Amino acid sequence: MSVDPRESQHQPSQRGSRIDRYVGSYAERAQGMVASEVRALFAVASRPEVVSLAGGMPNVSALPLDHIGDIVQRVVAEQGTTALQYGSAQGDPVLREQICDVMSLEGIEASSDDIIVTVGSQQALDLVTRVFIDPGDVVLAEAPTYVTAINTFSAFQADIHHVAMDDDGVVPEALEEALSNLAAAGRRVKFFYTVPNFQNPAGVTLSAARRRQVLDICQRHGLLVLEDNPYGLLRYEGEPDRVLRADAPDNVIYLGSFSKTLSPGFRIGWALAPPAVRAKLVLAAESAMLSHSTFNQMVVGRYLSSHPWREQIKDFNEMYRERRDTMLAALEALMPAGSRWTRPQGGFFVWVTLPDGLDSKAMLPRAVTERVAYVPGTGFFASDEGHRNMRLSFCYPTPEQIREGIRRLVGVIESETSLRDTFGSASAPHTGGTDAPTPDLP
Amino acid sequence: MSVDPRESQHQPSQRGSRIDRYVGSYAERAQGMVASEVRALFAVASRPEVVSLAGGMPNVSALPLDHIGDIVQRVVAEQGTTALQYGSAQGDPVLREQICDVMSLEGIEASSDDIIVTVGSQQALDLVTRVFIDPGDVVLAEAPTYVTAINTFSAFQADIHHVAMDDDGVVPEALEEALSNLAAAGRRVKFFYTVPNFQNPAGVTLSAARRRQVLDICQRHGLLVLEDNPYGLLRYEGEPDRVLRADAPDNVIYLGSFSKTLSPGFRIGWALAPPAVRAKLVLAAESAMLSHSTFNQMVVGRYLSSHPWREQIKDFNEMYRERRDTMLAALEALMPAGSRWTRPQGGFFVWVTLPDGLDSKAMLPRAVTERVAYVPGTGFFASDEGHRNMRLSFCYPTPEQIREGIRRLVGVIESETSLRDTFGSASAPHTGGTDAPTPDLP
Repeated sequence: MSVDPRESQHQPSQRGSRIDRYVGSYAERAQGMVASEVRALFAVASRPEVVSLAGGMPNVSALPLDHIGDIVQRVVAEQGTTALQYGSAQGDPVLREQICDVMSLEGIEASSDDIIVTVGSQQALDLVTRVFIDPGDVVLAEAPTYVTAINTFSAFQADIHHVAMDDDGVVPEALEEALSNLAAAGRRVKFFYTVPNFQNPAGVTLSAARRRQVLDICQRHGLLVLEDNPYGLLRYEGEPDRVLRADAPDNVIYLGSFSKTLSPGFRIGWALAPPAVRAKLVLAAESAMLSHSTFNQMVVGRYLSSHPWREQIKDFNEMYRERRDTMLAALEALMPAGSRWTRPQGGFFVWVTLPDGLDSKAMLPRAVTERVAYVPGTGFFASDEGHRNMRLSFCYPTPEQIREGIRRLVGVIESETSLRDTFGSASAPHTGGTDAPTPDLP
Repeated sequence: MSVDPRESQHQPSQRGSRIDRYVGSYAERAQGMVASEVRALFAVASRPEVVSLAGGMPNVSALPLDHIGDIVQRVVAEQGTTALQYGSAQGDPVLREQICDVMSLEGIEASSDDIIVTVGSQQALDLVTRVFIDPGDVVLAEAPTYVTAINTFSAFQADIHHVAMDDDGVVPEALEEALSNLAAAGRRVKFFYTVPNFQNPAGVTLSAARRRQVLDICQRHGLLVLEDNPYGLLRYEGEPDRVLRADAPDNVIYLGSFSKTLSPGFRIGWALAPPAVRAKLVLAAESAMLSHSTFNQMVVGRYLSSHPWREQIKDFNEMYRERRDTMLAALEALMPAGSRWTRPQGGFFVWVTLPDGLDSKAMLPRAVTERVAYVPGTGFFASDEGHRNMRLSFCYPTPEQIREGIRRLVGVIESETSLRDTFGSASAPHTGGTDAPTPDLP
């Protein structure tokens, strides 16, 4: 299921259509806060008969629930008066030390003083944006980029410029050119947002050679890098790369998360930042929520200290590898000529480009009718792009469901293609504009 | 202890003094994000030998930890695959229904559709501010008001105007006058922020007669009321008043919290808002954190459905009533002439006004030396006020500690008074300006 099925119990859009007496009172930043057009479709897509290749939900049923049940009980029994009390806005010092150990697996040497624990890495994105972005400031982001990052940057009225990517990640020459053009135009560029490993949504990974080039370019332009790495440890083949932060501690704000390596249910992510930036982030977090849940932080800390979590990640990786292989094999066997797709070495996502003349957003209602769902590519751009693209997720459905989902999807593509061949265009042309799918889909 | 004692393990201020290469890159809103001067003092105040009358931490040691341990274990065992997964940004539908039951105790009839679950009510404050406040917009707030609300409004560059209070809460004539003056000046006033019950920090409660007057004034001026009610159920004497929201569903955004009636450790608060506003808040929450912890919401839901929570609140109230009575009796017995203080019917706080010529902020280092801590009044104003005031909390220390703390405090006041009488002013005059105490102190 792509979204919380309990959501379908009511109809927010219906209620939202009442006259809004506060329409003249909202802040300028709130004007763009509107629900996505495709949201209603995803409510349908959460029905059990639909194979959803849309959601980015990890498969938490693979977790050792008995052991986690034991952990949460013991945190309350043994540390209850601390766990159930307010904590500090920076986060639990013990967990921050453990996060240093987790990050060392990807080459980072850091002090726990420079970490702030956040409500998922999404809140870290929000706090960084809040601290750096004035309306009209430029944020550079990959093309395509993570949908809810677009929402967050937009919520603070950033002007998002995309930088081209290919199968080796962001194209350094395109980054250099964007920075030169923006500098010539006198624009204030605040940071370059990148998901270098198994990118959401494109599934591609920044090559080792390009990592050095990207850092050189950013350092030369005095540009901060915002490195978002939720999937780094979910690698199914090949050798791990050093994360950007490992080689540029003063130039990178690094975001990590336990949502994919443990569970999104505890909402524990973090930011690692240069000390002065970290101090600002802590103050921003205080005004945003006072402090994160001490209980949840202690639960994750106890999990890390009492469970072979590296082995758990290996188990996850074997499960996800099989699902990825299943999806790639099904695409290889069934997809029509003129389509192409990425081959991720890890993470959750494959990025598909449809044959010329097809429009993934226009096609979505038909796909849902045929009981398969995906996220149209347009949601992953701040500009009017991505009409021929879709993001497919292999993390949540079983291999059998993945095979069936691709079979149904290819059926829809083929019938759209024959419509295009007969009438010169597919059933419904895109209407232009951008709209993000429901951000419940990380 | 007033702040997390584990925080004293490192010295953020020292690290923060490094040269900040990003000083020119921050957003305008971040310029005001600076750590409070008194923060270092509170680190000292967390030492065990200090009686802290500063923190607003509830006494969670009175909770049934065995039962809560059982609840958290069962949520993982029985609902783990849902509890540990992403949820919706609006929050768990079951918990939202239960929140309606909680609010009905204070006269509110509401639909669970109009509720959003937040990371404590602090996040609700943040989301409301984000949705409504453009730089320079006016927010009206009581004088004094909740310190971290000041931080949140300031973080979005609101212009905070205070409205006078007395022992019956905010003064309606002062509210009317403020609105007329601001209208005449062409200012955009976005909302009136109020804590009507057992106010933080003043401890006073808005009288029943004034509730109607305040609503009339706000409705006449088309002004939204932001009603923050974390302490409403913690009443130690007298009859409960209807909350403002009960009589003005279209004009009030109501904020509630389980932090004081259950535990702050789960970080579960909520906002109840008119439908169009609620829709904006949900979108803002998505970009702020994707979703709150499903696990924590289910834990609170199971607590409400499996534990006699009304009885638990009665137990809390008996404990807090004794502490309040102890503090009021100690103040009555010991405080020198020329001082006065409020007599709260509930909540956590007493607001003290010192004899003329004393300065609570200047006096704080001496008080901490004498092993007693409080929050100086200046932190509760956006303007330069509160120098003769202090907030005393009776929620966390035991009655014995409260008696000893007041004894020490009175000793400090008396020695400051004799300095004033000898030299014409107390040991250190205030330096002007405002600075908030650490917001870890709700």
